[in-house]
Formats: sequence, C-alpha cells, structure tokens
Amino acid sequence: MAKTIHAAAADIRAGRLSPIDLLETCLERIDRLEERIRAWVLVDRDGARAEAKRLTEELKRGQYRGPLHGIPIGIKDIFDVFDWPTAAGSRLWANSIARQDATVVRKLREAGAVLVGKTVTTQYASFDPSPTRNPWNLERTPGGSSSGSAAAVATGMCLGAMGSQTGGSITRPASYCGVAGCKPTYGRVSCDGVVPLAHSMDHPGPIASCVHDLATMLVAIGKGFGNLLPDLPGTPPPPAIGRLRGLFEDRAHAAVLRVMDEVDSVLRERGADVVDLTLPASFSEVVERHRIVMAVEAAQFHELRLRRHPEDYGPNITKLLEEGIACPATDYARAKEHQERLKEEMRICIEAVCVDVLLCPATTMPAPDRATTGDPAFNSPWSYTGLPTISFPVGLSDDGLPLAIQLVAKEYEEPEAFWAALWCEKALAVRMAEPPL
Amino acid sequence: MAKTIHAAAADIRAGRLSPIDLLETCLERIDRLEERIRAWVLVDRDGARAEAKRLTEELKRGQYRGPLHGIPIGIKDIFDVFDWPTAAGSRLWANSIARQDATVVRKLREAGAVLVGKTVTTQYASFDPSPTRNPWNLERTPGGSSSGSAAAVATGMCLGAMGSQTGGSITRPASYCGVAGCKPTYGRVSCDGVVPLAHSMDHPGPIASCVHDLATMLVAIGKGFGNLLPDLPGTPPPPAIGRLRGLFEDRAHAAVLRVMDEVDSVLRERGADVVDLTLPASFSEVVERHRIVMAVEAAQFHELRLRRHPEDYGPNITKLLEEGIACPATDYARAKEHQERLKEEMRICIEAVCVDVLLCPATTMPAPDRATTGDPAFNSPWSYTGLPTISFPVGLSDDGLPLAIQLVAKEYEEPEAFWAALWCEKALAVRMAEPPL
Repeated sequence: MAKTIHAAAADIRAGRLSPIDLLETCLERIDRLEERIRAWVLVDRDGARAEAKRLTEELKRGQYRGPLHGIPIGIKDIFDVFDWPTAAGSRLWANSIARQDATVVRKLREAGAVLVGKTVTTQYASFDPSPTRNPWNLERTPGGSSSGSAAAVATGMCLGAMGSQTGGSITRPASYCGVAGCKPTYGRVSCDGVVPLAHSMDHPGPIASCVHDLATMLVAIGKGFGNLLPDLPGTPPPPAIGRLRGLFEDRAHAAVLRVMDEVDSVLRERGADVVDLTLPASFSEVVERHRIVMAVEAAQFHELRLRRHPEDYGPNITKLLEEGIACPATDYARAKEHQERLKEEMRICIEAVCVDVLLCPATTMPAPDRATTGDPAFNSPWSYTGLPTISFPVGLSDDGLPLAIQLVAKEYEEPEAFWAALWCEKALAVRMAEPPL
Repeated sequence: MAKTIHAAAADIRAGRLSPIDLLETCLERIDRLEERIRAWVLVDRDGARAEAKRLTEELKRGQYRGPLHGIPIGIKDIFDVFDWPTAAGSRLWANSIARQDATVVRKLREAGAVLVGKTVTTQYASFDPSPTRNPWNLERTPGGSSSGSAAAVATGMCLGAMGSQTGGSITRPASYCGVAGCKPTYGRVSCDGVVPLAHSMDHPGPIASCVHDLATMLVAIGKGFGNLLPDLPGTPPPPAIGRLRGLFEDRAHAAVLRVMDEVDSVLRERGADVVDLTLPASFSEVVERHRIVMAVEAAQFHELRLRRHPEDYGPNITKLLEEGIACPATDYARAKEHQERLKEEMRICIEAVCVDVLLCPATTMPAPDRATTGDPAFNSPWSYTGLPTISFPVGLSDDGLPLAIQLVAKEYEEPEAFWAALWCEKALAVRMAEPPL
C-alpha cells in the first residue's frame, strides 16, 4: 500500500524521508501505471521536483510547515493552479492558463504540499465518463467526477488529491477506488478559482488513503478550524451512531447490505451506540429535487457556452443543461425551498436522537462498468443539504472491488465527524490490500 | 469624424439608426484600416452581429437600455470577456479563454453595448511598444498601454473602448490619438477579472471621442454614480480652474506650452476663473515614487511567471520587474507612505484654492516615434494619488499631431470634473479633423 500522509509526514519530520525521495516514489508510480490508469491531465515533473527540493532545503534549515510539508498532492482539473491550464474536461479550454491559484491551491502550497499535476475530471465535473480506469479492475469505472484524484491516490501516484462534489463526485470515486473522501460542510472550503457546476452544492474536498489524512488536508484548505488535528484524541470515545435505513437500504445492492450489517455488528461489539434512524418524510424527494437544482444552476453557468460550442459538451452534461434551461422557475424555486427545509429537518432529526454521526453506505454498489460513473444516490442528499461526510473503505466485494461506508455529521461538525470516523476506522481494523496492478 | 456615442444614441433612440447598421459601419472601417492600424487582437464579427441583431429587435419591441444600447465598444485585452482569450500581450496566454466576464464587461453588456472585440494592449499593460500605429502618423506611437483602444476609437472602428491606467495608459494614448479619456477615482471602477499591473494604482476607464461619451461609459461601468448624466447641466456654469505649473511646465515641450497658453486665454475669455496653483513640495518626488510602487506591485504579481517564462516578457517590463524584485521593502514602504501623504496634501491644496478642477497638459509632447510609448510624467501623478482625470484633444501641433488637455478633480468628484470638462470643451469649440488615412 502507498504511504499515508501522516506516516510520510512523521518520516519527513524525523528526517527519515526527504520530500524529494517521496516525490520520486510517486513519479515512478506514475511512470509505471499512468498509461493504464490515465489519472492525469498534466504532470509537472520539473515544477514538482523544484518545489520538493526547496521544501527539502527548508527542512535542512529547520523549517517545518506542518503535516503537508513535502507531501505530493494532485489537483482536480477544475481548480485554477498558477501557470497551468484549467481545462475542466473541455477541449476549448485545454490551453486556458490560470493567472493565479484557486484559494484552496494557495493554501495547499502554503502548507508545504508539492503539487504533482492536474488530475482527470469528468467534463465540467459532471457525469460523462472520463478516460480514467479503476485501479481495482480496469474495466470498471473509477467513479466521477473526481476520477483522476481517486485513482491517483489509490495507486500511490500522490498521497492526497483535491476533489469536488456537487452530486457524488468525491465520495463515489473515492469509494469505488478504495480510498477515503471528505465532502466538507457547504461553505467550509472556498470555491474561489474553481470551475462551478452548481453553486449552491459545489463542495471542494480532499481524497486520501485514510481518515487521518483527510483531516490533515481539510485543516489546510478549510476555514474556521483553528487546528483540528491536535484536538483529535489518540483514542476517541465510542461514538453514538444513527444508522440510516429507508432510501439507503432500498437502493443498496446485496453486497452493500451485507457489508453494512457486518460493520454494524463490529461497531456495536466495540462499544459504539448504534441506533436506527428514520429519515424525515421530505427526504424521499431529495434525488429528484437535487437534479433540478443541479440542472438549473449548471445551466446558469453553462447555457451561453453550450449554445456557442455544443460540440464541447458530452451527451450527459448536455442533457442536464437542457433540463436546466427548460426548467420552469417555479420548479427550481420549490426545489430551493425544499433544500432549505430539508437542511433544517436533518438538523432536528439528528439532534432528536442524540447521535454524533449518521452511518450509511458510501455507494449503492461496487464500481459498475465504464458506461457510467455510477449512481450518486447515497451522496447527492449530502451535497444537497450541505452536511459534512467522511467515507472510507471497509472491505472488498466477492469480485474484489472496494466497498466503503459513509459518516454524516451536522453542519460544521467536521471535528465530531472526524472523531467518530477515526474511531470507526480503528474499530473496523480495515487493512486494504493494494489494487492488483 | 466618426459618430459620437451620444449622437449615435440619439439616432438609435429615435429609430433613425439601427444597432446593426451602426456596427456594420464600424466593421467596414476595421476592414479598411485595420491592416495599417493594428488596433485589434480579435474581432468577433459573428458575435457582435448577433448581439447587434438582438439589440435591434429589443428596440423594435420598445425596449431601450439607455445611451449605450447598440453602441459598438472595444475591450482592452487585459479584461476578461466570456469565451474570448485574455492574452494581455502574452504569447503563452494567447489561448487562455475567460470563463466569465470582468465586472466592467458584464456592466457594459447589461447597458446594451455591442462588444466588437479585444483591442491591443502593450504586454501586461506595461510599456514595451505594441504593434499598433498612431492613425495621425503611422510612424508615431499611439501611446500605451491602451494602444488599440485609443487607435480604434480615433478611427471609428468602435465608438468607445475600455482602457486602463497604472501610469499614463489611458490619458496618453487617448491624447496621442486625438480622442478623450477618463481615468476615474481609484476604486470607482472594479478591477475584478482584469489582469493586474500594480494593484494600488490600476484604474479601468473609458476612451471615447468626447467628454460626454466618457461620462456615458463611466456611469455604466462605475459604482456609486446613481445616474450622473441627467445631472449634467445643458449649459454648465464656468468652472473655477487651478492651472498647474511646476512639473507640468518644466517637462512640457514648446508646442504643449503654446497650446496651454492659448487654452488658458480662451477659457478666461469665456468666463472661467483660472488661477495658478502651486503643487505641494512632496509632488516633486511623485515620478520616482510612482515607479517604485509600480515596480514592486507588478513584481508581486509577475515574479513567478517571469522566472518560469522569461521569454514571455519584453525588455521594458522585465527591467521594471527586476527593479521591483530587487527593491528593498523599506523603499516601497516609504513610497506607500508618500503616496498616502500626497493624496491628503492634494486634497488640502485643491480645497485651499477653492477650484473645481486642476488643469494641466495631458502629455509632455505630441506622439513621439514608435521606439517608446511616450512619457507618462503628466499622468502617473494621478494614477499614484487616485484622483480622477478627464482629457480631451484641443488641437493639432504644427506637424499635424493631436494635443490634449487634462482636468483633475478631487477624489470621487467625477460629476464636478465632467461639468467642468463639458464647459471647457464647449468653450474651446474644438473641431478635430479626422486622422489623414
């Protein structure tokens, strides 16, 4: 398995590993695997080497920026990175060089991250399949839209990567590829310098190989944490967990239901307080309403370009945008009202049962074939309500594909979510194999 | 002479001229003259025609957006225009397509302007000469950095254009090309979506063929005017004018001194109250300090790119950036202190003599040859102090080159500046010939 950020950080801090050597390991993996995986739009070997060298020299002078110092990170190709193109899967934008960093990218640089390159996104962060392959089975989808970020982390081409989620674009690819993903609270991470999909549901967030690494990245890129990590107890107390059924069982495949029952029983066994939680009635409309909000807000941004350059839009995003363009304003207004109401109802619902986090499967099934990017039904509710989620793999299906669970917390309760996720990850004692490449 | 915006607007409103026909007149001029003038980076004939058609149809339905409805406008190539590249004179940015409009561009669209294309800027709005020619003499400079905007308006390829000024980049090209320019109060017009040169002195502003047209454009693009134009009296009262001597005579060539004396005596004759005004002692340092602020702030933005792509920087901007990079912070801090002090001293100085506006030449001399973009010494003080300026041509030199005067007002007193400029323009009864093309 590739190194975790926190293991690499410990080695770097102790002088056992240099940022240069760590980067070279990643570049070697890219050299060896990229032809099969196609996770990258651009790899800036020279730039990354220069930065790793500079950060290595800083260490020699006793300067240590923190746990991302010298850590190779990939950036989804919808984030502006100074002097690199931001194509976002568009052919016409292929040479559109960013004049400055997105806020998130600037923060990663300040934290000492080594930017390796831009990772493949589905076109405009929507759901036309990208060329990226799932490292666990090249004929399966890596999920979307953060396809390249998930596949690159899963294969150790970088230790963490930026993703973004409007439907299920962090949780789903991370889960399909057997790595961890965090979709933070809406507004926690800046969208400045990021190509939008649907402004009221766009969430930049990290993809990494474990929960701890997600927290490290989120503290660096988010607002209002102070410093989350020192608050993470070495041995967090067992959390109170509300297990979601309803929608989250109806649409789940057998392999997922089975793994959820196993997870449930291990967590209880280890001392977690797991209760079943009934969703508010208005939850049943979430998938349909989410589609309306996404279609309209995506069309708000893309309509003019779609008219000018229809050839630069794949069939799925085109269909979405056409829905948005044709949507009566009253339908959108009703969806927005529902979105606000559901946010409030979810808060009341979680408070009523006094749980720290909600638990549900991360995806409806293991990675399907490459005809789609998979079903975001278990993710879009959290993009819609803006609640923070953390997902991490818990095992493999019978056909050797990763399966993951997802924890959901109240708005801005990422610290609580991370305590719970760290506890669960440890309780479940997951040891993922490496993808069979 | 090309049509003014206000004459065209009157014809459009009265149904005597359609936006389509007006645009075609401009496109014909581009077809006829562009090869010699080289004012444009990009002309979007199809896009402009579609927009002119739409605006013509709006008029048929009785919709009138105001005095920019259907007016062809050029945009300096440092402003982002949706779906057009923003090259800013960089080769590497030649295909960097803007994802959205700069604020100023959005406001122009909302006001009904027809965007004709992107006008040539010197590289990064600095002072390496651009390929644009001066329409009055093809061997002379059109000035910089808003070279294309000034030359395009002077030749009727568009009726108004966006420029920007950090040193003398609006007033100087406008004056050299025989048209009018307004550098608004610092902060009056948004720099959002504009490639920066020096953030504390960057001023987007309009170039047009007369003072009235500048006001029309400024109301559309600026903040906090309410609606300036209805407040402009038909016959404004004679203004109280403080004539600047000192620096503004020491560096002026004979032709400029002669024209200033003529202007002075006509304005007095017509009833203006003209008094000589002595500049604060600290004014003598303005040219040198301006250079420091510009060099440091330009380097703040460009340093990393200059290091990565030295081949994408001309000799003059390179020299400026190297000065900025080498500048001790204390020199910059002293210049910033001086800049703040001079702003305050200029306010006191103008209030002490109870004048509406200051009067000085717009440039030190008529357009020099194409080896430079000309001397910004009479403009950079106003970029440095942020005071609003209006310049307009008052005649021709013996060798047939335009000469202009410049009025300067107190911060945010654009309305007063426009009243005075309209009065002066009328009093001087300037009738500029067309450039001899």
